[in-house]
Amino acid sequence: MAQPNIQDSLVRDFAALVGAEFVMTGEADRYAYSYDAAALPPVMPGCVVRPGSTEELGRVVSLCNHHGVPLIVRGAGTNLSGGTIPQHGGVVVLTNRLTRIVEINEEDLYAVVEPGVITARLAAEVAKRGLFYPPDPGSQTVSTIGGNVAENAGGLRGLKYGVTKDYVMGVEFFDVEGQLIKGGSKTVKCVTGLNLPGLMVGSEGALGVFSRITLRLIPPPQSARSMMAVFASIRAASETVAAIIAAKILPATLELMDNFTIRTVESFRRAGLPTEAAALLLIEVDGHPAQVADDAVKVEQICRENGSETVTVARNAEERNAIWQARRDALPALAKLKPTCVLEDATVPRSRIPAMIQALQEISREYRLPIGTFGHAGDGNLHPTILTDRRDKEEMERVERAVAAIFERAVALDGTLSGEHGIGIAKARFLEQEVGAATIGYNQRLKAAVDPKNILNPGKMV
Amino acid sequence: MAQPNIQDSLVRDFAALVGAEFVMTGEADRYAYSYDAAALPPVMPGCVVRPGSTEELGRVVSLCNHHGVPLIVRGAGTNLSGGTIPQHGGVVVLTNRLTRIVEINEEDLYAVVEPGVITARLAAEVAKRGLFYPPDPGSQTVSTIGGNVAENAGGLRGLKYGVTKDYVMGVEFFDVEGQLIKGGSKTVKCVTGLNLPGLMVGSEGALGVFSRITLRLIPPPQSARSMMAVFASIRAASETVAAIIAAKILPATLELMDNFTIRTVESFRRAGLPTEAAALLLIEVDGHPAQVADDAVKVEQICRENGSETVTVARNAEERNAIWQARRDALPALAKLKPTCVLEDATVPRSRIPAMIQALQEISREYRLPIGTFGHAGDGNLHPTILTDRRDKEEMERVERAVAAIFERAVALDGTLSGEHGIGIAKARFLEQEVGAATIGYNQRLKAAVDPKNILNPGKMV
Repeated sequence: MAQPNIQDSLVRDFAALVGAEFVMTGEADRYAYSYDAAALPPVMPGCVVRPGSTEELGRVVSLCNHHGVPLIVRGAGTNLSGGTIPQHGGVVVLTNRLTRIVEINEEDLYAVVEPGVITARLAAEVAKRGLFYPPDPGSQTVSTIGGNVAENAGGLRGLKYGVTKDYVMGVEFFDVEGQLIKGGSKTVKCVTGLNLPGLMVGSEGALGVFSRITLRLIPPPQSARSMMAVFASIRAASETVAAIIAAKILPATLELMDNFTIRTVESFRRAGLPTEAAALLLIEVDGHPAQVADDAVKVEQICRENGSETVTVARNAEERNAIWQARRDALPALAKLKPTCVLEDATVPRSRIPAMIQALQEISREYRLPIGTFGHAGDGNLHPTILTDRRDKEEMERVERAVAAIFERAVALDGTLSGEHGIGIAKARFLEQEVGAATIGYNQRLKAAVDPKNILNPGKMV
Repeated sequence: MAQPNIQDSLVRDFAALVGAEFVMTGEADRYAYSYDAAALPPVMPGCVVRPGSTEELGRVVSLCNHHGVPLIVRGAGTNLSGGTIPQHGGVVVLTNRLTRIVEINEEDLYAVVEPGVITARLAAEVAKRGLFYPPDPGSQTVSTIGGNVAENAGGLRGLKYGVTKDYVMGVEFFDVEGQLIKGGSKTVKCVTGLNLPGLMVGSEGALGVFSRITLRLIPPPQSARSMMAVFASIRAASETVAAIIAAKILPATLELMDNFTIRTVESFRRAGLPTEAAALLLIEVDGHPAQVADDAVKVEQICRENGSETVTVARNAEERNAIWQARRDALPALAKLKPTCVLEDATVPRSRIPAMIQALQEISREYRLPIGTFGHAGDGNLHPTILTDRRDKEEMERVERAVAAIFERAVALDGTLSGEHGIGIAKARFLEQEVGAATIGYNQRLKAAVDPKNILNPGKMV
């Protein structure tokens, strides 16, 4: 039943270790783990294993290493760069039985979790104790902390609160031989040995397999206010983003939606969005009530000075939810329009957002492709979304060229290929353009040193 | 003139590259770079080189690699763990001609600097533009950004603002062959390739030689208020620290000084400190004026509820400066008492501070050594300071055993050997106790992969 690169004896070893019901070798099961949220061709794994404890997880790792079989750890598979596609076959290891919140420490402001804990569940448990775990990737209701850390997931609050890497205080992970490695600490400050938490964040499963993660928590903001500013030109909207930052205001969230996205969202869920608007900015300021009041006034004024005709401030929780529902609808609404949805996350310094928006419009025209643009304008992290159909070969070629053009323009604007989705398979061939061959060589030497047989998520990133 | 492990031909190559006046081989010059701020035996380098540009720096690296000669990069030598002592001889490379602030970008909130830029100079330049670079190590008036990043320097603002690693967005560095490696970006979000900025922060010069560093800047707090709370018991003071955090208040700074330190500081500079007090807490809250007002009231109330007899709030800049001058005096005042000053930085989760304070008192009694304790209580990062004389062999043996006992207790309290000073030579032999042999092996494999001849600051950390 298993793929040629998985020996039956290995499947039996897995079954003896974790229980036969937690080892899947059937074609339908394996197909379910052959793809992820990226628009890339599926690749079948040889088998799928669900360890029930971190001890079992460590022994799965050493079995794979002993047999020289690729090992791909998968949380919820929501990543957008093919990071969990088993490119060279092998074993997909699921973390969905490793879901313990080991500790939430209110005095010392940290949480210790197993990798399979769902992001939103942790955030809710933390909130119950009056604390705050800020990273909120779009997929937070299903994504796992292990996956968030492996991909260094971003989210809507990056501008003020940073991303996943800013909250990882400590990691415990199995090296390729199944030995437990510890980095970081439960203390805010820790400089003992190399900064392994820093190295492991965003390493896409290439350097080790997480068993436990210690996350920093913070006190929550006392209050928040959300608003929506309507613009007749996308240039004015994007210049407003830069003007808000230049005024030394750091909104918790500062999101942009272009006309194409607005119209698509409105037809997806009639929420009364201004479909004639060229662009919307969705903004939330938070903090002490007096600061929120001050910032809200200033932000509204900056929006108006930069040409916004209408600025609506949410008066209650319902109106606030309506604003953020519109933003959350953007991707599902766009994704429904066409069979294939290519979501990019090239990122530029935020003052370059107007130039990047213009570049996207030119690319859309040049390659005759509808591109919906929305995203974390406050971070310079837009999500240009190309709607297409993977079965249309001619169009897919144009899509690929358009994507390459997006990357090229982002790098030329002092930006980066990927702000938060990762390199995975999708962007591996563009990496050299951004960082150069020597940097890729340096990455490869690090990878080879800790995974000499290249079995940890092979074929990705480095 | 040069040490045996430096060939005259290499000295001539250096002179041809950077100019003869920037290559030092005389004994007095070499002696000046044989030690740093740690209480450790000096080791003479073979020569000292001062490259005048990052291009020259890269060529110095490849010359050292070609000759297999150790290379130790040195900023201001203020580190407290022996990180810049040339343990195996070789070439000390100074960064004090690489002092360009390449860019301060107000729109995109970042600065790009060469490694030799002095921390306080950068902070002042950034402040002139209405922005804020928070990390403020004690040595900031002389320490360099390159050194801060290599050691992941902490400081007084760690509790609210984090440490150096929280501000490093991008690094450019020379690998051991002199190739330029780039990690990170000028964008807040960046996940292209392994997180090299994360790996390089705190790597103590073992993995590469910085040529440029991109630092995140933030808007400054609008206001601040400082206060001093006097306690009749150190236990009450340390419990107050935990109570403030538990009240969901994050002061910018939350420092403790014990009676020994208070008396020493007062005799160093008569500032009117309460010399009868068992302990002082020095606290600063900052942010929006309304938040500062609220937090100050709450902090004062918590101090009083926990037994503080007197809480003095600074009414003006002069009173504020007096409070922080007392804190800044702590180390120089203690250091004057005896010829040798061993300053530790074992760190525990902040709720364990009362237990750690008690442990320090027991260790002081057991080993008959005066230990002055002050430091970043809000981070759990105390600086127990043992006053001794390196020439007194019997006493130094007790000091070593006391230090070992401090480390043991910190680790037993879920803490770490070093919060901000680094491992260097001083703590290398204690590292295994904290992280285990497998973790050290993992560190060593990473190091060997990028520095196969082991010439980058050999004999340290890993």
